[in-house]
Amino acid sequence: MKAIVHVGLKPGVLDPQGRTIATSLVDLGFDEVTAARQGKVIELDLKGDDKDAARVQVTAMCEKLLANTVIESYRIDIED
Amino acid sequence: MKAIVHVGLKPGVLDPQGRTIATSLVDLGFDEVTAARQGKVIELDLKGDDKDAARVQVTAMCEKLLANTVIESYRIDIED
Repeated sequence: MKAIVHVGLKPGVLDPQGRTIATSLVDLGFDEVTAARQGKVIELDLKGDDKDAARVQVTAMCEKLLANTVIESYRIDIED
Repeated sequence: MKAIVHVGLKPGVLDPQGRTIATSLVDLGFDEVTAARQGKVIELDLKGDDKDAARVQVTAMCEKLLANTVIESYRIDIED
């Protein structure tokens, strides 16, 4: 089973990396870019096939290690 | 219009960050984790509403700046 965890900055948190990407793209001539945000994706391979149990466990992983919940939010997708 | 760009390491490329995540999760007691990979997501706000043109432009952005195509692959989703 696979879990895909999307971690991104909460709205309102300054995103210097995203701002740098947007500025660099405009500098390269991509004038149509008005803003950019960068987040991360963590793909986990998991033993077992209980999707509900997996979601509970992956939520605990996010709270303990994968996301900094002060400034980041996360979303979990469980796949077969 | 929005473009979501997913950038990840190509298969076979060593992913020390992913390996560290997997090891740390197992150390924390999440024994069901067998592997982890980390990638990044870049969300772009774009002017205009021609999706095909946007895809062409975002592909050029990936080749020039957003992905290191020697070791990374990318996927582009265009949204309204």
